Amino acid sequence: MITNFNQLIESLRLRGDRRTVAVVWASDPTTQEAVGRAISHGFADAIFVGCCDEVKKNAELMGHAAHIRFVEAADCDEAAREAVRLVREGEASVLMKGMLNTDNLLRAVLDKETGILPRGRVLTHITAAEIPGHKKLLFFSDAAVIPYPTDAQRAEQICYLSEQLRAMGVECPKIALIHCSEKVDERHFPFTAGYRELIARAAKGDFGPCIVDGPMDLKTACSAKALAKKGLVSPLEGDSDAVVFPDIEAGNVFYKTVTLFCGAETAGILKGTMAPVVLPSRGDDVISKFYSLALASL
Amino acid sequence: MITNFNQLIESLRLRGDRRTVAVVWASDPTTQEAVGRAISHGFADAIFVGCCDEVKKNAELMGHAAHIRFVEAADCDEAAREAVRLVREGEASVLMKGMLNTDNLLRAVLDKETGILPRGRVLTHITAAEIPGHKKLLFFSDAAVIPYPTDAQRAEQICYLSEQLRAMGVECPKIALIHCSEKVDERHFPFTAGYRELIARAAKGDFGPCIVDGPMDLKTACSAKALAKKGLVSPLEGDSDAVVFPDIEAGNVFYKTVTLFCGAETAGILKGTMAPVVLPSRGDDVISKFYSLALASL
Repeated sequence: MITNFNQLIESLRLRGDRRTVAVVWASDPTTQEAVGRAISHGFADAIFVGCCDEVKKNAELMGHAAHIRFVEAADCDEAAREAVRLVREGEASVLMKGMLNTDNLLRAVLDKETGILPRGRVLTHITAAEIPGHKKLLFFSDAAVIPYPTDAQRAEQICYLSEQLRAMGVECPKIALIHCSEKVDERHFPFTAGYRELIARAAKGDFGPCIVDGPMDLKTACSAKALAKKGLVSPLEGDSDAVVFPDIEAGNVFYKTVTLFCGAETAGILKGTMAPVVLPSRGDDVISKFYSLALASL
Repeated sequence: MITNFNQLIESLRLRGDRRTVAVVWASDPTTQEAVGRAISHGFADAIFVGCCDEVKKNAELMGHAAHIRFVEAADCDEAAREAVRLVREGEASVLMKGMLNTDNLLRAVLDKETGILPRGRVLTHITAAEIPGHKKLLFFSDAAVIPYPTDAQRAEQICYLSEQLRAMGVECPKIALIHCSEKVDERHFPFTAGYRELIARAAKGDFGPCIVDGPMDLKTACSAKALAKKGLVSPLEGDSDAVVFPDIEAGNVFYKTVTLFCGAETAGILKGTMAPVVLPSRGDDVISKFYSLALASL
């Protein structure tokens, strides 16, 4: 079982198998450096799409010539379409955003004819956080894509988290459905009634081996002590591997709080597409982009 | 300017003036101990309403006999009504919950005839967090009461925060309106359009001297570095004294995250009532109840 990012990197190295990453418009040094590290650690090959001259100037990456291809593109929109095509045709198995707007990349990803989101699939975001002092990685969804998930969308979030955690070696992931209280309150918080259905579906095995429980607050989900103090009992035992937030505001606040105030490192990817998409935000540093690439390469 | 809880306690001690706290059904040692500390530090007198025998057994509190009164009550509902009456009639200027359900206390507080929420006032919750490594207390609203605030309710939250911070010695408090993005998006997040109006009202002086800005994410609100990295400019300069969350889920996740993962201490009170109400949750320890009493006594 992988409990921190170093172990994730090490397990990818030991696997000895490289995923091909199509990198869109990597004009910035942090993207180039993150990809360079993934190549060095033996888990990635790269296809830089667009901005080739700027990438070629980067001396460090040049040491990896055997693991890099270049595809020219006139502008970032063409680069996005071309990188998406590479994923669609199986030439790349991870897509990564460089220095273009998220909207421009998503337009190519979501295109009904040439995109990589299969019809009926839910596009959502999952993040893993390594929080100092916490014993394992904590996964969560969704800090970035779906404003107010429907029950059906939340089912997919659970499914993606469950799959991702099993890939991390957690045989039966514990997933908490977050709410400010442990009470179902259909009147003020209709989604808490939906939680009941999702728990029932999880028990039937709809999401693969995993345990889902809620509603519960974040502390009860992640601390056995807090659970006991409240006099509550949950099959998650205050030991959640992942938490599903009720809305993007809660997810985003969690993400920003652990990174700003707790010194957490994070890795985030888009799920639902034919291949995972690394979609860093402007503020992300090299290490966060590198960890995100690792998560996408698992 | 008060930047941490020790300074708050010290400034109350120097003021040399005691607030009378009506404590409802204090059958638990943590409530008794928190009140005892407030008496010791010279900023509180107490009226224990109900559970008098149990409180009297507590030897430590007995050292404070000169600062304690007892009022008998048959049950916790009667105790709640009686304590609320004491506040209503000016005999107490802080109300504090002991070991009864929040609902039972709120019923007495909200009673249209005998309660202490004046007609038309908004009941909401404000919290102050002392986060290790952060240079000052961070106030926020609302982690506990209003599920999805309307623009009018949010205006009151801003108003309470602005007043409270000025009482803490912050001449012109900086208040951020939180959202997962810095863009107004009326379609998916109608409240972000409301933010615009609130900023305009703040500029006109509706909330007293203060600066309000948003939408912005938590990191941009509280870190000048994050603000600069995103290439944004805000009159808050990444130096917010308070943040207003879009909904209770985001507020509650922030509260649980900083206390569980960042080692933060917090103090929380209800505002809108004729006197502040200290309404601890089951998991709160002595220090959190003590700090809450201090905040209510300012």
